[in-house]
Amino acid sequence: MPSDEVVKGSASPPEKKTAIAHKLATKQQEISVTEFFEKNKQILGFDSRSKSLLMGIKEAVDNSLDACEEAGILPDVEVTVEKVGDEEYRITIEDNGPGIVHKMMPNVFGRLLYGSRFHALRQSRGQQGIGISATVMYGNITTGKPAHVESLIEGEDEVAWGMDIVIDTKTNRPIVTNDKAFTWEGKEHGTRIQYTIKGRYITGKQSVFEYLKNTAIVNPHAQVVFHDPEGKRYLFERATDIMPPKPKEIKPHPEGMEIGDLLKYASNSSQKTVSAFLKNDFSRITDRIAKEILEKSKVNGDKKPEKITREDAIAILDAIKTTKIMAPPTDCLSPIGDNLIKKGLMHVLDGLRPEYYATPVTRSPKAVNGNPFVVEAGIVYGGDITSEGQVQILRFANRVPLLYQQGACAITKAISEMDWRRYGLEQRGGKGIPFGPAIILVHVASTKVPFTSEGKEAVAGFPELQSEIGLALRLCARNLKSHLNKMERKKKTHAKFEIVQEILPDMAKKAADHLGRPVPNLDRTITRIMNVVWVEPTVKKDGKKARTITYTVYNYTSLERTFRLHAQLPKECVNLSLFSHPLFLDMNEDGKANWEVRSIPPSAHVEISFELKGDMADTFDADDIYFSGLNPVMVMGAEMLPGDWGIKGMEIVETDEGDFVEEEEEEMEAEDLGDE
Amino acid sequence: MPSDEVVKGSASPPEKKTAIAHKLATKQQEISVTEFFEKNKQILGFDSRSKSLLMGIKEAVDNSLDACEEAGILPDVEVTVEKVGDEEYRITIEDNGPGIVHKMMPNVFGRLLYGSRFHALRQSRGQQGIGISATVMYGNITTGKPAHVESLIEGEDEVAWGMDIVIDTKTNRPIVTNDKAFTWEGKEHGTRIQYTIKGRYITGKQSVFEYLKNTAIVNPHAQVVFHDPEGKRYLFERATDIMPPKPKEIKPHPEGMEIGDLLKYASNSSQKTVSAFLKNDFSRITDRIAKEILEKSKVNGDKKPEKITREDAIAILDAIKTTKIMAPPTDCLSPIGDNLIKKGLMHVLDGLRPEYYATPVTRSPKAVNGNPFVVEAGIVYGGDITSEGQVQILRFANRVPLLYQQGACAITKAISEMDWRRYGLEQRGGKGIPFGPAIILVHVASTKVPFTSEGKEAVAGFPELQSEIGLALRLCARNLKSHLNKMERKKKTHAKFEIVQEILPDMAKKAADHLGRPVPNLDRTITRIMNVVWVEPTVKKDGKKARTITYTVYNYTSLERTFRLHAQLPKECVNLSLFSHPLFLDMNEDGKANWEVRSIPPSAHVEISFELKGDMADTFDADDIYFSGLNPVMVMGAEMLPGDWGIKGMEIVETDEGDFVEEEEEEMEAEDLGDE
Repeated sequence: MPSDEVVKGSASPPEKKTAIAHKLATKQQEISVTEFFEKNKQILGFDSRSKSLLMGIKEAVDNSLDACEEAGILPDVEVTVEKVGDEEYRITIEDNGPGIVHKMMPNVFGRLLYGSRFHALRQSRGQQGIGISATVMYGNITTGKPAHVESLIEGEDEVAWGMDIVIDTKTNRPIVTNDKAFTWEGKEHGTRIQYTIKGRYITGKQSVFEYLKNTAIVNPHAQVVFHDPEGKRYLFERATDIMPPKPKEIKPHPEGMEIGDLLKYASNSSQKTVSAFLKNDFSRITDRIAKEILEKSKVNGDKKPEKITREDAIAILDAIKTTKIMAPPTDCLSPIGDNLIKKGLMHVLDGLRPEYYATPVTRSPKAVNGNPFVVEAGIVYGGDITSEGQVQILRFANRVPLLYQQGACAITKAISEMDWRRYGLEQRGGKGIPFGPAIILVHVASTKVPFTSEGKEAVAGFPELQSEIGLALRLCARNLKSHLNKMERKKKTHAKFEIVQEILPDMAKKAADHLGRPVPNLDRTITRIMNVVWVEPTVKKDGKKARTITYTVYNYTSLERTFRLHAQLPKECVNLSLFSHPLFLDMNEDGKANWEVRSIPPSAHVEISFELKGDMADTFDADDIYFSGLNPVMVMGAEMLPGDWGIKGMEIVETDEGDFVEEEEEEMEAEDLGDE
Repeated sequence: MPSDEVVKGSASPPEKKTAIAHKLATKQQEISVTEFFEKNKQILGFDSRSKSLLMGIKEAVDNSLDACEEAGILPDVEVTVEKVGDEEYRITIEDNGPGIVHKMMPNVFGRLLYGSRFHALRQSRGQQGIGISATVMYGNITTGKPAHVESLIEGEDEVAWGMDIVIDTKTNRPIVTNDKAFTWEGKEHGTRIQYTIKGRYITGKQSVFEYLKNTAIVNPHAQVVFHDPEGKRYLFERATDIMPPKPKEIKPHPEGMEIGDLLKYASNSSQKTVSAFLKNDFSRITDRIAKEILEKSKVNGDKKPEKITREDAIAILDAIKTTKIMAPPTDCLSPIGDNLIKKGLMHVLDGLRPEYYATPVTRSPKAVNGNPFVVEAGIVYGGDITSEGQVQILRFANRVPLLYQQGACAITKAISEMDWRRYGLEQRGGKGIPFGPAIILVHVASTKVPFTSEGKEAVAGFPELQSEIGLALRLCARNLKSHLNKMERKKKTHAKFEIVQEILPDMAKKAADHLGRPVPNLDRTITRIMNVVWVEPTVKKDGKKARTITYTVYNYTSLERTFRLHAQLPKECVNLSLFSHPLFLDMNEDGKANWEVRSIPPSAHVEISFELKGDMADTFDADDIYFSGLNPVMVMGAEMLPGDWGIKGMEIVETDEGDFVEEEEEEMEAEDLGDE
């Protein structure tokens, strides 16, 4: 208990300590958000000259793509980087978006924490209302120059507006100069920002070029032109004219909500009763579910939402936990889709002539803290992809490439925690980033991507999210492994073919000569030794957007065979050539096509052939061919039709020929050895 | 040029697009900083239940240590974690700091971006004015409960105050309830915060225990008590009573300043002229240097600072670049120091009985963006440290352990980019985190640590900083390597001794028996074969704070020898036992001690012995013994005195005996072989 004595055996006199508490008090003050970010520019991603150069471009391009998509416009974005001084660059980003209303321009570009997408539960690139204003601020801090912004909105108002903008860092408010209307020649609508910034232009993995290239992979509907500081022009062409579906805004989902969230929603609600509040302010709460929650929680549904107490909130949240509520709606998200991921990857990576594009995986949506999210993954393998060192990781969040902070990212963590040795990649101790000739792509789409910082460079490791990434990767890796297995088997069978068809007759002749006997006829023996139905695909490239696919089917068994072949085709690319083929059976709505090979005699072969024409023609992997109606041990070059294919396959015919042939093989080997 | 035609071949009618630009405009709005962080809690580090539990404790303990040090009080901090519900914990942190003035308590704990250390150029743990308020906010969001804060300042005002605080997230202002004065029994001064938070209590590498343990390593002057949820009490004792020197506030250093910074300082300056502004508002700008800058930049030194134009600013910055200006003062920093790092590591890690504590390295200060910083590194090797998997990395910033986001941290990057194979650790391809039985410690101290996010979990990769970390690591790794080499040599010499002293006489006897000759006397031969002066240290532990060190020096050469031995001792631990030893010569101010071994005959040995008593006694590594006055090829167990030791060593005596002996050795081997 504090006594009345003043001195308490402390080293310094008490006056001094009091002085310190009071001295500290005088220093306490508010920090403006602009000052905070000015002093912590690394948090916004402006921590090195080379990164700063990229950050600004990234923020501007993100905004352009968001605006175009919101307006349903196929994006045309042009990026220009000019060197104007020592480590000083002038950057221009121009789009064909809907434009920005004149009076909003200053706040959009000249005020931190100001934006249109922060409160919306819907996938978008920009969500924080920080990025582009931070770019304007950082340009101004490093060069003293204002940013110049121009915008033209279409229709009623055909005059463009241009203005210079800087941010007052003390007040976080825009200062506008030279605000002028002008006629924008040749432009229908769009926005253009030009700013000068201290930066360093680099090439390689973290360059502007790489960022734009990767943007093209996950935004196949966008066209991007890039003028580099040497005046070279690069065009990333649109890979498809199909706009991604526009994400819809949703209400918050009750799952994973905190007490504070619920109390806040309740106090802000315009509903008259708790019951109506639950039904109308959340997604997936129906009349029945609201009733169930209220009954379980024993909260009076007729009371006003703002009267909900902490105890009520706990009871409601507990009730929600034990109530079955539908997963959040997913039209708020815009995943790329497995086909378009593959298309995008091919479009950009085809120079590397990869051996294999593993069928990308788009997981079904989940929610974390009430925010729906979707994970997508793809793997590209082999060809000219370097096999030196670790695999390359392409990380994306809401269709934006993430080039920095790989080590901080949940995507990297999920990759590192997987045992890739089981899927055919090298990895020390089954942990860490694997090694080998592969590129791994992961895309996280969410109404609220949990970035680790305002610089939006890495996704935070929420457990639910990381586990979904792991699942997507495993599914995709399984495709890779099955491909590698297939290739391995093919190689072995090729070797067997070689032995049987070339070396065996040779050996027979030699043995016959040696023994002075006539050379025996080996035709039947070869067929019996092989004992396979062999499916061999060939792909003919008929220009950029057309392919002719041919499957040659050999019956190297001693019996007549009847069976079916199946493939999932890019439906929009098929034509009469498919339907008119005599072996063609049917194709369903998903593009799953079926053929029947009837009564093919031993040692005979047939051909199945068709054309694919259109944008997606090259995404079809001819190795993805399936069969039904045969014992899997006797088929080479095709996989057994999976159970979930969704059509009724033929029964698998049991056979005991396999054992018999193996015995004969062993005899051959024994003879062979005796001959030496 | 936009024409008068309304339809421009666009898919949607123009009215719709205009509507979009205007629709977007209506959604534009300001985002409150509290709302921003509420929705982006992962940025503050609250992204999983287990991490959230730690974050709050970390922020509170950081504040306690900062406050104690500012007041010159040896910190006593007590942390209590109690489980009060399903994933719900009540956390209490109490300190003996100077206390917080009553009227400041609400803002300190209930308002984001409010603090006393943001504008100060001086090392401190908290700098952002976010952490503890974010903890209060997050506790309230997840449990609905307010935080309870109590504080007592010493002296004039002996009544303690307690109050409940929550943050209004819409306005970022504290809401205070139950504000009451009370008598704090048994307390002289200090602050106590108690809050309830959803969390998960974990053990292991990212646990509260680990955080407090690592805090003890880098804050050997602090005492920390921890009560875990099971009621167990852990005490991290103070390892030293010496307070670290209090960092002093400095003015900004002109180096690395941006144009925007200069313009801002100028417009805020209270100085009358540019000349006075340069001299008085910056550190290290003297009269002469101000003149030089003004001459080079051709800016009029008499004009008012607020009249500086963008062109003036560019000219001044260019002039600063070509002017030699002293490095920033470093009394704004408080590095731990190599001795205390070692002491701290030993204090906490001694259970692992490491084989070697590499002498820690404290680099001299550098500056980045005008912020001075110091890098320190230490390595602990061998013993019971696990050799499975990657080495353990202990990261610290301003004496705070960083437990999360290892992959995002410049410290990890610097470690990964070093080729550790050159320093005796295993590493695939000379890149990545090395493998082996080692713990690597890095401490970055700065007036402004560039964290990658507000959660302060990783240091951003500013190039200047990363390169300094690399240098500190290399220096420290060199110590490790030299130790490993020494051990390797010792092992080899031990093996040689074994052969010569045990096997050789045995062999000679065998050979003599075989040949029927008498066994030769090998004494001289052994000495001549060895041809070394052997220094063998032994350490006797006389309790926790006392050691007796003995060096036994053997002359296994064929001549009488005179030479010196040298060691750097913890000066404050030596006593009469050192000075009274007959071979002792002298010791300088740094604790560098010298002994002389005079005319030691062949095959003889002498002993040098002394005691060390006190806190730092255990930090002396007996293997760190040096010699002078001998040819290095003939010394085992001591290193040659380095040139920078600072005392005049004796001349190195050249000898040709080595060659002769080697020949004899070869002969022996040949005989040996013939005998088989």
